[in-house]
Parts: sequence; C-alpha cells; structure tokens
Amino acid sequence: MSHLFYGVAYYDEYMPEDRLAKDIALMRETGINVVRIAESTWSTLEPEEGQYNFYHIDRVLEAMHEAGIAVIVGTPTYAVPAWLAAKHPDILVTTVAGQQKYGPRQIMDIVNPTFRRYAEKIIRTLMAHVQHHPAIIGWQLDNETKHYDNIGRYMQEGFVRSLQEKYPDLRQLNHDFGLDYWSNRIDRWQDFPPVENTINASLACAFSRYQRQQVTEYLAWQAAIVREYAQPHQFVTHNFDFEWRGYSYGVQPRVDHFAAAQALDIAGVDIYHPSQAHLTGREIAFGGAITRSLKPGQNYFVLETQAQGFAQWTPFPGQLHLQAFSHIASGAAMVSYWHWHSIHNAFETYWKGLLSHDFSRNPTWQEATTIGADFARLSPQLAELKAENDVALLISNEAMDALNHFLPGDARGNIYNDIFRRFHDALYDHNISLDIIHDVNEETSRYRVLIVPGLYAADEGLLTRINDYIARGGRALIGFKSGFSDENVKVRSSAQPGVLRQSCGVSYSQFTLPEETTVSSCCAEIDCRNDNQAELWMELLTPDDGTRTLLRYQHPAWGEYAAATEADYGQGRALYVGFLPQKGLISQLFDVLTADLTLNSRTSAYRYPLVVKKMRNRAGNNIHFLFNYSGEAMDVVSETLGTALLSGETVYVGQPLRLRAWEFTIIES
Amino acid sequence: MSHLFYGVAYYDEYMPEDRLAKDIALMRETGINVVRIAESTWSTLEPEEGQYNFYHIDRVLEAMHEAGIAVIVGTPTYAVPAWLAAKHPDILVTTVAGQQKYGPRQIMDIVNPTFRRYAEKIIRTLMAHVQHHPAIIGWQLDNETKHYDNIGRYMQEGFVRSLQEKYPDLRQLNHDFGLDYWSNRIDRWQDFPPVENTINASLACAFSRYQRQQVTEYLAWQAAIVREYAQPHQFVTHNFDFEWRGYSYGVQPRVDHFAAAQALDIAGVDIYHPSQAHLTGREIAFGGAITRSLKPGQNYFVLETQAQGFAQWTPFPGQLHLQAFSHIASGAAMVSYWHWHSIHNAFETYWKGLLSHDFSRNPTWQEATTIGADFARLSPQLAELKAENDVALLISNEAMDALNHFLPGDARGNIYNDIFRRFHDALYDHNISLDIIHDVNEETSRYRVLIVPGLYAADEGLLTRINDYIARGGRALIGFKSGFSDENVKVRSSAQPGVLRQSCGVSYSQFTLPEETTVSSCCAEIDCRNDNQAELWMELLTPDDGTRTLLRYQHPAWGEYAAATEADYGQGRALYVGFLPQKGLISQLFDVLTADLTLNSRTSAYRYPLVVKKMRNRAGNNIHFLFNYSGEAMDVVSETLGTALLSGETVYVGQPLRLRAWEFTIIES
Amino acid sequence: MSHLFYGVAYYDEYMPEDRLAKDIALMRETGINVVRIAESTWSTLEPEEGQYNFYHIDRVLEAMHEAGIAVIVGTPTYAVPAWLAAKHPDILVTTVAGQQKYGPRQIMDIVNPTFRRYAEKIIRTLMAHVQHHPAIIGWQLDNETKHYDNIGRYMQEGFVRSLQEKYPDLRQLNHDFGLDYWSNRIDRWQDFPPVENTINASLACAFSRYQRQQVTEYLAWQAAIVREYAQPHQFVTHNFDFEWRGYSYGVQPRVDHFAAAQALDIAGVDIYHPSQAHLTGREIAFGGAITRSLKPGQNYFVLETQAQGFAQWTPFPGQLHLQAFSHIASGAAMVSYWHWHSIHNAFETYWKGLLSHDFSRNPTWQEATTIGADFARLSPQLAELKAENDVALLISNEAMDALNHFLPGDARGNIYNDIFRRFHDALYDHNISLDIIHDVNEETSRYRVLIVPGLYAADEGLLTRINDYIARGGRALIGFKSGFSDENVKVRSSAQPGVLRQSCGVSYSQFTLPEETTVSSCCAEIDCRNDNQAELWMELLTPDDGTRTLLRYQHPAWGEYAAATEADYGQGRALYVGFLPQKGLISQLFDVLTADLTLNSRTSAYRYPLVVKKMRNRAGNNIHFLFNYSGEAMDVVSETLGTALLSGETVYVGQPLRLRAWEFTIIES
Repeated sequence: MSHLFYGVAYYDEYMPEDRLAKDIALMRETGINVVRIAESTWSTLEPEEGQYNFYHIDRVLEAMHEAGIAVIVGTPTYAVPAWLAAKHPDILVTTVAGQQKYGPRQIMDIVNPTFRRYAEKIIRTLMAHVQHHPAIIGWQLDNETKHYDNIGRYMQEGFVRSLQEKYPDLRQLNHDFGLDYWSNRIDRWQDFPPVENTINASLACAFSRYQRQQVTEYLAWQAAIVREYAQPHQFVTHNFDFEWRGYSYGVQPRVDHFAAAQALDIAGVDIYHPSQAHLTGREIAFGGAITRSLKPGQNYFVLETQAQGFAQWTPFPGQLHLQAFSHIASGAAMVSYWHWHSIHNAFETYWKGLLSHDFSRNPTWQEATTIGADFARLSPQLAELKAENDVALLISNEAMDALNHFLPGDARGNIYNDIFRRFHDALYDHNISLDIIHDVNEETSRYRVLIVPGLYAADEGLLTRINDYIARGGRALIGFKSGFSDENVKVRSSAQPGVLRQSCGVSYSQFTLPEETTVSSCCAEIDCRNDNQAELWMELLTPDDGTRTLLRYQHPAWGEYAAATEADYGQGRALYVGFLPQKGLISQLFDVLTADLTLNSRTSAYRYPLVVKKMRNRAGNNIHFLFNYSGEAMDVVSETLGTALLSGETVYVGQPLRLRAWEFTIIES
Repeated sequence: MSHLFYGVAYYDEYMPEDRLAKDIALMRETGINVVRIAESTWSTLEPEEGQYNFYHIDRVLEAMHEAGIAVIVGTPTYAVPAWLAAKHPDILVTTVAGQQKYGPRQIMDIVNPTFRRYAEKIIRTLMAHVQHHPAIIGWQLDNETKHYDNIGRYMQEGFVRSLQEKYPDLRQLNHDFGLDYWSNRIDRWQDFPPVENTINASLACAFSRYQRQQVTEYLAWQAAIVREYAQPHQFVTHNFDFEWRGYSYGVQPRVDHFAAAQALDIAGVDIYHPSQAHLTGREIAFGGAITRSLKPGQNYFVLETQAQGFAQWTPFPGQLHLQAFSHIASGAAMVSYWHWHSIHNAFETYWKGLLSHDFSRNPTWQEATTIGADFARLSPQLAELKAENDVALLISNEAMDALNHFLPGDARGNIYNDIFRRFHDALYDHNISLDIIHDVNEETSRYRVLIVPGLYAADEGLLTRINDYIARGGRALIGFKSGFSDENVKVRSSAQPGVLRQSCGVSYSQFTLPEETTVSSCCAEIDCRNDNQAELWMELLTPDDGTRTLLRYQHPAWGEYAAATEADYGQGRALYVGFLPQKGLISQLFDVLTADLTLNSRTSAYRYPLVVKKMRNRAGNNIHFLFNYSGEAMDVVSETLGTALLSGETVYVGQPLRLRAWEFTIIES
Repeated sequence: MSHLFYGVAYYDEYMPEDRLAKDIALMRETGINVVRIAESTWSTLEPEEGQYNFYHIDRVLEAMHEAGIAVIVGTPTYAVPAWLAAKHPDILVTTVAGQQKYGPRQIMDIVNPTFRRYAEKIIRTLMAHVQHHPAIIGWQLDNETKHYDNIGRYMQEGFVRSLQEKYPDLRQLNHDFGLDYWSNRIDRWQDFPPVENTINASLACAFSRYQRQQVTEYLAWQAAIVREYAQPHQFVTHNFDFEWRGYSYGVQPRVDHFAAAQALDIAGVDIYHPSQAHLTGREIAFGGAITRSLKPGQNYFVLETQAQGFAQWTPFPGQLHLQAFSHIASGAAMVSYWHWHSIHNAFETYWKGLLSHDFSRNPTWQEATTIGADFARLSPQLAELKAENDVALLISNEAMDALNHFLPGDARGNIYNDIFRRFHDALYDHNISLDIIHDVNEETSRYRVLIVPGLYAADEGLLTRINDYIARGGRALIGFKSGFSDENVKVRSSAQPGVLRQSCGVSYSQFTLPEETTVSSCCAEIDCRNDNQAELWMELLTPDDGTRTLLRYQHPAWGEYAAATEADYGQGRALYVGFLPQKGLISQLFDVLTADLTLNSRTSAYRYPLVVKKMRNRAGNNIHFLFNYSGEAMDVVSETLGTALLSGETVYVGQPLRLRAWEFTIIES
C-alpha cells in the first residue's frame, strides 16, 4: 500500500442505463483508483438456482482494468435472492420479533446449514470465475456482517452445546450463573429452556457472546473459502461497522471486532458521521482508533464513508476534503465512498452518492477531484502513516452486554457506548490521541496512560493485569462500575471495585443515582465551577488510607463521600471516578493524573474545534495535521517547524496561520 | 335535491328502551328530514346464519315514512357477526400485525370470496325485503370502506396476477422497479415473495395502489348488487372519509376517492374536525373541495359530522350553526349528524350525538333546531349551490405513497398530507377558494391557477400536461419534490425537477434539510421579515437563464442558491418553491404569481378568521357567506350588496356589520 | 402478635457461599425476629420431576429456630422450573402479546389444570416435610399473585361458562351488554368469540372481573391445601401488591384485594415507594389503609418493603427509621425487608437489600439496628395499634376497569388510580386519616365522611346505599363520573349522575374537557386564587333548587355552569365536584363539607410535610406520631400531652419540639 487509495462502491447492476464508459471516464477525472463491486448482487449473479450470470462483473472488471482502476470484489452473500427464500424459508433469521420476512438485506440465519451450503456455492462459483482477473487487488467478505439477533434453533442448540463443553457438571453452571434465582435452575441438559426471554443476565450475556462468536466463525469460514482461490498478492478484508444511531456511534455490540479481524489480512471499516454544522471528526477518530488496533502496526481501509449521504449530510464546502484527510490522519490507507452514484429505485434512494441521481458534476464531486489529486500527489508523504500514541482506552464487548443489562434509573439504550463516547470524546476534544485496546497484557506496557470506562464485567485476571500495569508505572483513569461483576456477570461479594481496590485505594458499599448533584473540588488543580454535574450514577466512595480525595459530592446526605480519588500504587498511579463526569471535568482529571508526564499523545495546546493529530511517515518524519472543525475561520500559530504539504511552503514555530471554515493544514517536520 | 337535507344517523337497534315515537317527535321538532339507518347491523338482521330479523328496519321505515322523514338505508357489511367469524375465521383480515381478532368493525378481508358470498347474501336479502318501501330515498354502500391494510393471501395473489398482466416479461419489472437492489430480483413468478416486508418502494407503492383498487372494485361490486333492487328515483351513495388524526386530516391514503366514486350516484363524505377554540372550518373546506370534485357539477352529502362528538368537541354556543352553513357554503346538499343519540354501551359511549345519553333537550340540540328551521326556510336560496373557482390544487394518492416512503430526516407519519394541508390552509386563510383535482387534462384549462404540492411520483405524461397547461396560459405554483420520480417511484436520472424544468426554468442536483434556516426575499413584492422559516426540505435551486429568483436561503453554505423562482413559459408562468414555506409566505407567493389576475376564487379582502365563500345559486345569484371563525366579536363592512338571508335585511357595500363570536351572515346578491 | 415483627426475606439458595451462621449472627445484631423463606425456590426444591431436595429449607429452619428467629414459609409456586415448562409448554400463560416464553417469574396459567396438578404436588410435599417444624409461625401463599393478563383457553372457557350461568337467555346478555353495537351480537353460545380484542366495554370489564375472581379462587385453593397441614397456631397470609409505576401506586387492577383476602388469616402487603428527596409517606399511608381494611379490626404485615432498593432509593440518613414507624402508625404488625442481602446474579442484582453485595455493615444496616432495638423496646406500647378513623374513601375495581376504558382526551394509563391518588393524597397532606372501603353498607355508618372518587360503574344498589348513608347523616364528597354507568358499564339514560342526583341535588347532560380552564369560588369559605385549575374532565353542572353552588368554571362558553355544588339531603350533606381539582382545592372542599364536625380523622393543625397519625394502643392510650417528611429541620409545638416514647421524656401541649430532617416523634397520651 505504497499509495493512498481513493475509492467508490460501484454497482453496474443498479444503473438505469449503460453508463460504464462514462462513469469510468468521470472516475479518472475524480482521481478514483479503486472500486468495490459485487457485494449484495447474489440475485443478479444467480438469478435462478444454479444458473449464473457474470455479465456485470465481467464487464466492470474488464473496463476498470483497462482504466487502471483497481477492484475489490465482495462476496455477494449479505442479501439472499427471492428464489432461495421461497425454496428454503427456514434460512431467514428468527429474532425475538419472530422469523423475519423476505425483503430487507441481512436477515439470513448465518448458522443455518442450508444457507451456508448455498452461500458457499455462490462464493465458490464467483471466485472460480474471477480469481485470475488482474484488476482484482483484494476480496471483501460479505458486508457489515452481524448475527442479526439470531435466536433460531441452530443458534440456541449451538449455544447449549458450547455450555455443555464448558460445564460438564450442570451444578457448576447453576452456581456460576446463579440460576437458582426465580427457579431458573437446570438439572438436566434436555430441560434447557430457550434463552431469548431469560431473566438471567449471566445466561443472556453468555448467549450474546456466543452470538458474536458465530460472526467470527462465519467470517473465518468465508475467508477460508476465498483463500482457496485468492492469489497471493490479493488481500482479504471486511468492512466492520459500529453501533448505529443514525451514524456510527460506539463499540459494535453484535461483533467482536478483535476476534473477527483474525480472519482478515487488512482491517476495513465503514464510518458514517453527522455532517454540516454537526461535523466534529469524533467518529472518524474513534472508528479509526478501533480499526487501527485490529491489526496492530498496519494501516486500515475506510471501505465506506459518506460523500453526500443523507439529505441532512450534504457537505458544506470544504468538509469532504477535511473528512478525507482526517481519515488519513487516523491511519487510513483508503477512503472509499458509498457509493459512486445515487440509487434510483428500491430503498436507499434517499441516500446520495458522490454523484446525484442526475450523474452531473455537482459541487461535492468537484471537491472530490481535489482530494483525488491531493491523494495522488501526497502519497509519498502520507501513505503508511503510523500512530505513536502512549494513551490507550480499554473497551469490552462483555462489559457492554453486562452494563446494558443493568441500566441506571431511567437510562435506556446502549449506555456503555454513551460512557465510552464521553471518555473518548473528552480526550479527543482535549487533543489527546489514543489507541483503543480490548485487553491488558504485556503489550500494554508501552502505553503510559490507560483509560478504563465502565468495565462492569471482567474476570479476576484482567483486573489483576490492570493492577499490575499500574504497579509497573502505568497511570490509569478508572471509571465507575469497573470491576463490579465477574466474567459471568456475577456481582463480586468482596468490597467494590473488586481487586481494583488494591490499585485505586478506594472502596464503596453503597451507590445511588445523582439528582441535581454536583461535585466540588478538593485539590488546587481542579476547577469545578463549570462542568460539575454528576451524571448517570454515583458511588459513595470511601478512600483508603493514603488515597487522595480529588472530588466530593455536593449533597446534604452524601457530602462526606468522595466522588473521585487518586492513589499511588507501586510505580504508578490510579485515579478512580465514581460518577459520569462532564467532558470538561474528564479532561481536568486526565491532566491531574498525567501532569508530570510528557505524552506523545498530547498533540497540541489547542483544543477542539482545532484538532491536531501527529503521525510518523515512512521517511520517519512527523506529520502534523491541524484541522479546523468549525464553520468559523481560525487564526492560529504553527506549533511545529516543517513543510506545509498542501502548499509546499515552509512554516516555522509560531508562524501565524489562518484556517478558513473547515480548512486544515498538514505539516511534515 | 331541491331542498337542503338535515339528518341524523339513527339506530333503533342500540336503544336501551323503545323510544321510536318519542325520537321521531323530537326529530320533527329539530327539523330533521332524513335519517340514515342499518349499516353495521348485520348481527341484528341475521342473528344466525340464514335466519333474518327485520323488526327494527321495518318499524323505523314505517314510522319515518309516517312522519315524512326520508330514509337512507346502508348495507350492513362493515361489521361482521360473531357467528360468521366463528364459522369462517379466514374472513378476518391479515395485516402486518397478523390476522385480526374478532371484535372491532372493519376487520374483514374484502377480497375473500367467502366473505363476499355472505355479504352478498345479506345485502340481497335486505334489499329484497325493503326495496319497495316509499320512505327510502337512497342507499349507502357499506361505511367508510377501506382495504384495512390487507396483506392476506387473496390480496397478494391478486397483486401478483395484476403484475403478470402488466409485465409479460419479468425483466421489464425488474428494470422498472429496480429489483436488482439488495438482491430483490425475481426471475420466476413462482419465486415472487410476500410483499409486506419489501424494501423496494416501487413494489410497495404498486401494492398500495392495488389495495386501493380493491376498494374501488368492492364498492362497485356492492353498487351493482344494490342497483339490481334499487328504484329509479333512489340514489346510491357512500360516505368516504379522510386520513384520521383524531379528526379528518388530509387525503385518504387507503382509498382512491376519484376512482371509487365512479360507482356512486352522489358523493358522500364524513367530516370531523376539532371544535371549541380549535374550530377553523379548514376541514370542512378541504373535505368539501375533495368531495365536490368527485362528481363535478353535483352537490354532495355530508353523511356524517359531529353534533357534540368527543368530550373536547362539545360545541360552544354558535358553533353548530356556523359549521352547518360552512358545509352548505362548500356545496353540501345535506348535513347529517352521527348520530342522533349517544350510545349507552360498547365502544363509543364517549361519543355524544345530538342528544346526550339522557335524551334531554340539551343546549346543542337547541341550536340544532334553529339550523333545521333555517335549512327549511332558506332551501329556495341555498339548495344546489355551485362553486365557480378558478384555482385548483392537484392531489395524488401515488405521490403520497411515494413521498411517505422517503420521509425527510426525522419526519414521521403522513408528511404528504402535512404538505397538502399547509398549501391548502394557507390559501383558505387567504380567502382563496379552490377546487381539488387528481389529474391535469383538458378540463383543467378552466382554472387559471394550479397548485401542485409534493407531486413526488408522476409519469412523464402528467408532468408534460402540467407544462402544457402552463404553456397555454396557466399559472402554476409547484412545490418541492414534484417530478422527482416516475410512476414506478424510480428517481429520474435527468436534471430535477424532471420535465417540469421546462416550465419552471430551474434545476437542482443537490438538496438538504433546513436547520434553523430562513429565506430572504429577492423581489419587492415579498416581505420575508416574518414567516421566513424554511421547513422540512430544501432544494439547492439554480435558475435557468431568464428565470427570476424570488427567494434565497439565508445560510453560510447555501446562500447562493435560490429557494423559490418564477419563470414565464409559453403563455403562462410557473413559480417553483424548493422548500416548505410557512403559511404566510405561501400566500405571498400566490399573490406574486397572480398579482395581475382577477380571480373569482379570491373571495374577499378579509383574512382568516374571517372566512368568505362565494357560490352561485339556482337563480344565478351570488351567495356570499361571511363566517367569523373566532371567539371574538368582529366589526366588518359588507363587501357586497344584497339581502342578508338570515335577517332578510338589505345590506349595501361598506355597510358596517357586527359578527358575534362564531357568527356568520349570508348575503344573496 | 403481642410484639412487633422486624423481618427480612432470606434466600440461602441464592448465596454465593455458605453464610448462614454469619447471617444469623448479624440478624440478631440487627434485631431481626422473623424471616420469610422458600417462595420462588421450586426448581431448587424439586430439581427434577418428583425428586425433592430440602437441604436449604431444613438447614435454615434449624438454624433460625436455634437463633430464636421465627420463620414464614412461602409456597414456592410463583416461578416454575424449566423442566416443567419443557414438559408442559401449555402451562405458560397466554396474553394479548401471545404465549409467554420461559424465563421470568409469574408467567404461568393459574387456571391450567396441569399447572395446578404440579403446583399442588410441590406444595403438599413441602408442607408434609416441614409442617411440624417449631420455627414456623405461618405460611405465605405464593407471591404477589395476579392473573398475569391470562386470556388462555381455560380462562376464556371459564368466563363463558360463568356468563352462561348468569344469563340463561342470551338475549338478556345482548341487552345488558349492548352487544348489538357494531354487530357484536351473539345468538348462540357456540358462537361466543374470543374476548381479548372485544370493543365492548361491558364484555371486557366482565372478563376483567372474572380474571380477578380466578386470583381469588387460586389463593383460596392454595389456602385450603396449606391448611390441611398447617398447625393451629400458624397463620396463612399473602403479600398483596398494588399498581406498579416503578413503585406501589394505587389500587391493584388485577386482584380484588377484598375478595382474595377472605382466604387469609392475616392480610399482608408489599409496599414500595420513592425515596430520598421524593419520600412522602403517601404510599405507606394508602397501602396501609387498604390492607388494614382487608381484615377489619386486625393488624397487617408489611411482608416486603425496601431497605436500600433501587439505586435511586438508597435512603438518606433517618429515612429507614421514619419509614418503619410510618408503617407502624398505619397499623402494621410487621416490617420486613426484601431482602436481607443483595442478589449477585440473575435479574435483580440492581436491587440492594439491607446488606449490599459485600455483606458489610453499611450505614443503612446501621440504621436498621436502631429500628430493631426500638421495635423490641416499644412493642408493649406499639403492638396491636388500632385506627379510629371516621373518614372513609370508597374504591372499586369495577369502576377502575370501566373508567380506564373511557379515558378522557389524551389521557393514558390507569387514570382511575390517578384520581384515587389525587383525593387520597390531598387528604393525607391535610392530615386527614382515612380508611378505605370497597362497599357502602351498615358498617359504613360509623364513618362521618365518605369520599367517592370516580365511581364510574356501580349498580343501583350501591348508589342508593350512598344516598341512604347521606340521608342518615353522612357527609359525602362525590367526584365527577360517579354514577355514570351501571354495573354492566351501560351508561345510564337518566339524568346524570344517576340516582346520586337525589342526594347531590345536581345534574348535567353535557360535559367537556378543560382547556386552560380555572374555577372561581362562589362562597366565602373557598379561596380559588391558587390551585384553581380544572383538570382532566369537566361536567357542566346545573344545581337543583336549594343546592348551593360552591365553584363555577371561568370560561367564555361555560361560565354559567357550576363546577362544584353542595346540597343537604336528609340528615346529611353531599358535595359534588364535576372536575378533577388540584390537591389544595380538594382539601378546601373537604373543610367546607366538614367545617362543623369534630373529626377523629383530623389529626393535626399541621400540614404535610409534617404528617400526624393517631392510633389507639392495647392499653387504650392514644399514640400520636409526628413525622417530619422533609429534608429540613422543623420546629413545631406538641399538640398533645404525654410521653415521648423514643426519649422517654414527658411533653406538654405547646412544648417546642425540633424535628431534624426525616425525624419523628411518638407520644403516648
């Protein structure tokens, strides 16, 4: 990947008329050098069972090859043809809402053997047909694969088998999961009830983990088939996505990205985000940080992101450009739009591609041509950028499941991700670059600071490794609820926060919800006049001897309890916070914890909306990105000496720079 | 219909005790001259299969005839007896929520042959029994018939057959509907999937149209049966209704009123509306305008409207009177309340008729007696009034379906009707009377102005006819989204707004959602200091050469685009508006478009809450209605010379008139 | 019950480790003298069909006995084991949402004969095993039993049979229920349709009553089985609960508490309530008043209430103490927490018992030890307290069903309970103690005032008995909608409010909803400057001759109508209120009605948050409780002469007393 990829998804199948030659000419004008094709086209490829039609695939491959545009071919399995559903209705997934009805994509039962048989056949037939085509640089498995909330027979039977393997003795299962409660005890495997309505969080979370494992297994199964045909120079990738709140929001609850990425050569991702006045770069940053961590040391593909997108996302002038380089600044090796044109029929006609329905050279497309040109011109400096962060944030699908099972008060939805975003976004706004990790191990020692939000469920081993990380000199910011329950979602009967008490030097036996509750500062470094609301949760903390109280609750009944504490532990230090702070306070707590450290992750004295990223390029030079994420022009001074890559001019430290609305600069030093 | 009908629905079946004689005496005191009976009484008429009981029908017909009160008999089919559902459970309709359970009315499968067989039997038996009774002046088919969201086997099979007829070659269907998207392609008819969960808007909207066609067919089928028995002087009618938001709101999505009305002799309608401080007359106006257009040149029946109605609708003094004459001013030949008394059991006990549950002479009833007297006294002047509007508004069930499939941003519900009502109500408040049409053809040339809101889906023919209408001298106010997709809900790949660009002289390739966005005026005639919000949608318009920009968006990114434009085309003129304006701005745009025209539809210099209607009576005289739709007394001056019909006094132009709260005057000139 | 019981629920089955000895030691330290065990433990007791395991029961009974702690054993039937649901899936209840899936508790079909057979078996086996154990003082039947919205086959068939018995002639049923409406008539029993989707309120409410009757029957069935084994000194009880809005809210819609309590020796109840800043004591008061009335003249058990509870309920210092004595002040003989510890697995880990998950001596537990000590010390004075109220409030499950079928305007949910609470809470805040009754009969004459809110459905007999009560000297405050329909939910065709017109001297034919409507006072005693909103409903009242108008509506259209009236009737007086008043106005209306009476129920000149209760103890002394239900310290003066029981000091009338936040005092006089 010695150059930056600039791509689009392209669907010859969906065109209202033959436009292939015209589109390719326009792509070249745009600077497009890669296209994604074929995923979701099963019914076109195999219009009747066993009858294949490669018309569109063949002509697109041929024409792209001729034009020098690389192609990524997707397996077409994420939407099933009508004939298959008609012949085998049982391949449609069953969820708590019942068996899904034909129509939408992503409604198949991915553990159904019949579905697997047909899917394997179309993948093998397609691979055999195109495998030697020189246009193809890689393969995409399926599309945003998930388990689709599958509670079908195969999923449940598999889950029970997996438990049988782990628990030869049901009494252990009853004990670990606390199944005695409300008479949920199971004393014979044949009595195992369907789990979709269980009230036992241990069982529910174990099932959720099993569902995610089937996504991992499914992608590995597809990868193995594809690799039987793939050429050595071709990569296998997949476009992961995230929780969806109308845009990419937080950690994906239905896929274990880290496990599933094992089957890939290169990690890929789909990142969608608010735009116009709501464009912040936060989704680009956290999505990049997660994806960058799936294959440490490698760059990743943004296989899908928006060009125009939803009507409310039509980009303001400058935004498309800003977004593209924000992806690069996170370590992306590709920025690819979904998709080239705008669909004229069916479901997603509301969604605008790079071209509108009229295929004309619209203003957004105009801006894309400048990105294409910049990508081509600056690839020597910007390809294969590496992050060198020394701050990491720990995420956990298991903690998410568990915490979301026990929502505080009236909270609804994926609260884990709300907490994750609060901590991530506070540091993003504070220009602290971070990596995202899913475990703490020897590798973690390269980080000087560890952020642990909402680690509700974790085994003793992980908690001990966190303690060890701190003991060896690490700094940790540990959020409320961490350590509360074990890996089986059994609440610990020790003092809370479990063995984290050792490092954090704090404990609690009671907690409550904050109601118009603020916190007050107990140290000079923290100013609580603003951003002082305690949100979502509050633990009534009692510091151990030697632990410093940083914050207290301002409350007639709880005023004697600590709200945040800091303790030295071994060579390191742990800051524990018993409530959900506002962003401004999180950044202050981070600063208190790290005041004496020079952090590579601390990229700038500026704050959001001025966002600064630092990466290292192939030549070993630092690349400084300075983004103006606002609709106002900003006057800043350069914090580094180097060459402004877009203009080619030299800038010195302290040199005044003017960034227009949504403008950015890149300085190589 | 040489006299005005004043009616009530009357259900002897539901009475807690025998009140027939007392009720008829009281009806005569009220001025009631027509009653509707029998619809929904199937279980009373046929208590067991094949056993009939005409007790209530016979005695009511006899007594009414004796009292000189005319009777409209309804076929009793809109609620099925328990024995029929018990014997043939499959007659209950299946919707996306599953098969409906016995209990409510209007839950049968109207295309189920078994239901049809039983329905035909009861209709024929009833008709044969009563057909010669001299009290009967006409027949009402069923009641507010709709398709009840029927997705049952018969509906789906019929739909597929209708597609087979239209598309001998499935490839054409795949192309027209874009079924390749997300692998929805169908290559054998036997693979045709159930459509209720389709993501293909072309398919979904075609199914919706087919469902409406079955309502048309069902009413025609009932009409044919009834006409086998009806006497030549008896009419066949039906009470259409509208979208329901707790009251009649906009165009009925589940019935094509224009097609279904073909089977009728006289169009009938049910109109319900907010009352008390929320009474505006708007529902009476738009409901009247639609119904008046179903049988051009004829008057129509208001077969149902509220007397007391919901608790929150108990009319203030004067309102019942005002409402009755508002119906007449729209062209109604009948005002009939639903219903005479208030039901003591079952479901609708919350609903108050003209009489309360206690049958006493309550204040609302008192006011009704004055209406009855006025109707009798003024029939010579007010029967058979004709509208002579030269402004028309185009509605389309197909555009509604399509637009509602692609709701902008967070919009929910029937947005098409929100847009329809915005345009209609703006003109109503501006005292512009209008007709409502569902097609543009030779007849349309009699209108000088055409309003086209949200014509999202339309074939090339209709758009061309709109262009031709303008070219021949018409003025058109065309709203955003018009022309966007073809009759198959395929987005046009030409520049937008499709061929309407020819007449409107404007195009766009991009659009977005307004967010705190206002518009500014580019011409002297429009004042944008108030009512300047762009709502719901905004197209980034670029005027062609020669097109005048009337409005621009006030926005840092979109300020160069036009928001509304005006162009001359042939003999006419087209005003295109790319966003949803507030009412005050719509009326200003209308005035700009028509400043040089003297319009018959422009009835007054007053504005809402003073509402003015003009009609022509049998004598060829103009009838001016001046309604005070407010709770405040209003001092106005007469805009016409003539006779005030309620008082009999002569009024001259400029004569001061005082209208008390909710009062009105009628002047024949 | 010569001493006060202080208890906890205890589940040895759920413990993560063996803690029995430790827990009992700690219970003794707390002052716990009773535990509830065994309910919900079916799967532990009978892990496979016919195999029994009494390990936990036996060891807990033995250990408690040794420690001198009494035990209440619950039948374990409210949660079914997985093996039973696997073998007999039909035992799971079917509701309108379909058949419930295994997992939660309380999802069985209590009228299913298979379920009954298995339930009887486990009850008999358990009883036979433990019946002679000396630790056991009583038995709890099941747990918060309800009908679980059962619409299954057995429930429906039983309902139809019950109608057949009552209505030998279906014509009478059709007439009484008004089934002719919308063709719902039934002329053969075999045509009787499923009732779950009926639109007929008479039918729906009759079914609801039948469902409640099955709860009564089920508890009586369990009681009969238990009594075959119970020893003479052991009581049978059950823990009733209330409508649930996140806490105990109003009358329980799914159980007829009065009928179901017939099967019990002692009435028991579960009372949960908001805490922290939202603690008011209202739920303790109304829950106590209902439960106290189930077994007149007896004390009752609070079998469950919160210790820590939800996170948002963690009690402020002093609140646990205040709550415990508030129960005693309502007549409770037991205060028992649910539950001792906090559950580590499954569903309710969010719920905190007296101990947290860490079993440590937390501050809430600390406060409990003072309660335990006070209970032990003050039992001679506080055991077997009797209420001597002369104000009663009439509730009705039937009126609730009917009124909730016909919700005014946009109102949603259990409006009956909103009305009930409004009247109850107004009087609670006004320091009027009341009893709650479910019928008016000879016994009622001991009350001098009767409150009748929302008695929407009532037979002529009950209304006449209310009239008679008034005629004999009673005072009645009758709320809107009372008397509106008969016992079959048929609206009366007489003038409203039915025969209550006789006593109330007022009638109405029309009503509406208040929209920004206030009331004005027509008498010197009522001040309407505040609390003057008319809410929810407004009847347009016309007083009969001699009736005094107390309030009028302030409204341009309805200003001439009365809003509240007062009439003398026989020896008594009736105050009728046609709308829902705010609390302050209700208390003023009460004062007007009772101005000349010296009421025992009027406990204090203080007002909420100072809450005063008066009870009579075994020695015949008055016990005055003065609670400070606020977070502010209050300075008051004693209204009585006596001994402050907590301090042992004598207080005199007028003596200054300071009550700290959430503090109380008890004075025996």
